[in-house]
Amino acid sequence: MRQDLSDHAPETELAENQEVSHDLLPRRVEAIREALAAEDKAKVNALLLALHDADVAALLENLSVEDRRDLVPLIRLEERPDVLAELDENVRDEVISQLSVAETAAAVASLETDDAVYVLETLDASEQRQVLASIPRLERLLLEEALSYPEDSAGRLMQRELIAVPNFWSVGETIDHLRYMHAQMPDRMPYAFHEIYVVDPGHRLEGSVSLDRLVCAAHAAPLASIMIRELRVLRTDTDQEEVAVLFRKRDLIAAPVVHDTSGRLVGVITIDDVVDVIDETYEDEIMHLGGVGADDLHRHTLATARARFTWLLVNLGTAVLASLVIGMFDATIEHMVALAVLMPIVASMGGNAGTQTLTVFVRALAMRELTTSNALRVIAKELLVGLINGGLFAVIAGGIAWLWFDSPFIAGIIGAAMIINLVVAALAGAIIPLVIERLRVDPAVASAVFVTTVTDVVGFFAFLGLASWFIR
Amino acid sequence: MRQDLSDHAPETELAENQEVSHDLLPRRVEAIREALAAEDKAKVNALLLALHDADVAALLENLSVEDRRDLVPLIRLEERPDVLAELDENVRDEVISQLSVAETAAAVASLETDDAVYVLETLDASEQRQVLASIPRLERLLLEEALSYPEDSAGRLMQRELIAVPNFWSVGETIDHLRYMHAQMPDRMPYAFHEIYVVDPGHRLEGSVSLDRLVCAAHAAPLASIMIRELRVLRTDTDQEEVAVLFRKRDLIAAPVVHDTSGRLVGVITIDDVVDVIDETYEDEIMHLGGVGADDLHRHTLATARARFTWLLVNLGTAVLASLVIGMFDATIEHMVALAVLMPIVASMGGNAGTQTLTVFVRALAMRELTTSNALRVIAKELLVGLINGGLFAVIAGGIAWLWFDSPFIAGIIGAAMIINLVVAALAGAIIPLVIERLRVDPAVASAVFVTTVTDVVGFFAFLGLASWFIR
Repeated sequence: MRQDLSDHAPETELAENQEVSHDLLPRRVEAIREALAAEDKAKVNALLLALHDADVAALLENLSVEDRRDLVPLIRLEERPDVLAELDENVRDEVISQLSVAETAAAVASLETDDAVYVLETLDASEQRQVLASIPRLERLLLEEALSYPEDSAGRLMQRELIAVPNFWSVGETIDHLRYMHAQMPDRMPYAFHEIYVVDPGHRLEGSVSLDRLVCAAHAAPLASIMIRELRVLRTDTDQEEVAVLFRKRDLIAAPVVHDTSGRLVGVITIDDVVDVIDETYEDEIMHLGGVGADDLHRHTLATARARFTWLLVNLGTAVLASLVIGMFDATIEHMVALAVLMPIVASMGGNAGTQTLTVFVRALAMRELTTSNALRVIAKELLVGLINGGLFAVIAGGIAWLWFDSPFIAGIIGAAMIINLVVAALAGAIIPLVIERLRVDPAVASAVFVTTVTDVVGFFAFLGLASWFIR
Repeated sequence: MRQDLSDHAPETELAENQEVSHDLLPRRVEAIREALAAEDKAKVNALLLALHDADVAALLENLSVEDRRDLVPLIRLEERPDVLAELDENVRDEVISQLSVAETAAAVASLETDDAVYVLETLDASEQRQVLASIPRLERLLLEEALSYPEDSAGRLMQRELIAVPNFWSVGETIDHLRYMHAQMPDRMPYAFHEIYVVDPGHRLEGSVSLDRLVCAAHAAPLASIMIRELRVLRTDTDQEEVAVLFRKRDLIAAPVVHDTSGRLVGVITIDDVVDVIDETYEDEIMHLGGVGADDLHRHTLATARARFTWLLVNLGTAVLASLVIGMFDATIEHMVALAVLMPIVASMGGNAGTQTLTVFVRALAMRELTTSNALRVIAKELLVGLINGGLFAVIAGGIAWLWFDSPFIAGIIGAAMIINLVVAALAGAIIPLVIERLRVDPAVASAVFVTTVTDVVGFFAFLGLASWFIR
């Protein structure tokens, strides 16, 4: 949460708040480019000052490598550390390589712990050590502790800054305390908070009080009487996707995190971090379904080519497999070339139908809408859909083949193969993701290639096999 | 926001809060099924009482149609209206068809306006009129107004319940007012709120004060001194995806909405609604990329088959187009059957490479990371990646073909066709989504079929065309 608690919002935020649309980005890029080309530093500074941190990050991502290199020294990232946290990982690596260790450390130290950890965890081990060594001790210990939690855990996601008060305080005492802290020790306050946490003398969590409850309660009311006992325990080792599930289901905006062994209250996760997790999870799923890495757009050309090569190589393997099936029937094809002309239709329809089923199953698994209690019913539905559409397309494709080659024989073969392949596609599209999920592999990554392999092989085999069997 | 402001959280929530995991769903389904089969109403009620509204909705979605029909009358949805709001649209239609108009109206009336609108907008026009007619006048007018805003607009998404105070009040007066309202008129309070809004006598928005600012400020401070002037104006007609962009970029948890013509403050959008928009947007994108509708899982078999048929029919058209290309070269294939065996390899590799590029571009467009300022650079990168991988796979596939058919001629042809098709795939995967976006059509829906059509046609044409040209 980067909302400013100081008494006046910075002017830049006011100016920028007006603009809901992202469509301004190309104009901003153009303006910065011109100012950089003219070496007009005052102009660049004025442009940067008018932008929200998130917009500066978007600007950096949109510039060419050369323009970016020129711009970075002018941003003074140690004063605008949130720009680093907003950047895509590949671009951030590049930007940080331009900063001194001291500059990076200054930027990291002034971020909230969750954002600081987010930036630190993408550095390589030696850079990370160097940067940490340049950060003041107290802050460093907090960050090192956060980095000791597993990747993608609540411990990495949480911020350490939170408001915890003793369980015997009243509403009035709590508000007085907040006013005092804000006036006297603003540095020790979180940037923004939505709940306060009630702890026992051992700093173990007893409950939470949302601020709307706090301001609505009577001055003298004891906190214990208005707090919600916190039994939805997020622990430092809870997986971040579990965290997202809980936030979504309970419409939370913040949730406390306790240490996995000591049970002490150690941090708080806020909804903005959860939205980032949600974005990341979907992004991964879409990119994996498309056979690319999540950060493909901002990777360098060679790195992109290499990453995609692997996926294409797997695909080449499956294509060769399909070719081997065709090769089994080369004599039949030689005898009747029309088969070669039509055979991709059966395979392609199977591939598309399989992908439809696969998409529904991968999505349902990700949303946890597919369980042992409804899986059989949904698979049966898929089979029926495959049979219905298989029958319809048997007639349509058969009709086309008949008209084209004036051959009821070919029409019959393509029709039968279509039904077989669409039913197999439904089965493969449903069962393959379920099996892959059981093997604890992400079904979005691996399912598509298996499904299309099955539909290619079965498509060619059914069509050519039936033809050769009848021609014999 | 469904957090309860009453002084004690309901016991059921306490019991349920403990369970982060969804893995309990199958066991719950089993338990409910057994209780329903045994007609043990007390058991069913006990099971339902222990569940959060979101879990009851998940349970309903997971039951068979028959079990669902038995369970619905036992839930008393007019007392647990949030269950309706949490349900998938298809299942909700089915459930509502079991309720009387009075029951549905009672449920809708006790929802917050945003959730009530969400339920109402999926009813058909006559049902909607009937239900609205049974809702008390004041509530009905609010709902009718909300329904008058465009679909997917901020006006539909917002809730009407909010805290607005005059611009001359102090912090102390505001807190006293909140305490008074909460004690005397709890019905007129929102379930949960995170900001209060400062308005002029014409109810026009002047600024917002987050609750953390409010509780930290001095008792006597005027609100005007701590409010943030609201210049990020969401209007009732702002598109919901614009809303999501703003929330994400500014890490907001709530934002006020003003009427598009009068400028009066009319509602507030909270982050939980935005998370639903984010989910819905991604869900649509993934499902459309896979050639299925967003609500495919919960549709009836025939409706599913019909919806998918359309997509498969389009695909059949493109497959026939590819077959026509093959048909142009039937004499060449008859002369050299190895071409028929190998031709799917070139087409399939092109399809996969095109899908990779397409995925990156569709994603970048959706995240607004692709603008006129970087499009050319990214397209150039794609072409280079296509050329690099085209070259590599030309060698690999050429090698395989050489070994398999002992023919340097076929190896050369497949290599050349591979380079051509992977470069064309990069170009098609990049440019087709850009063009489709320009035509104001969702690129996730329409791009894939065009890209694979191009890669199929070019793949077959390049491979067979080159072969026939050299054989002549």
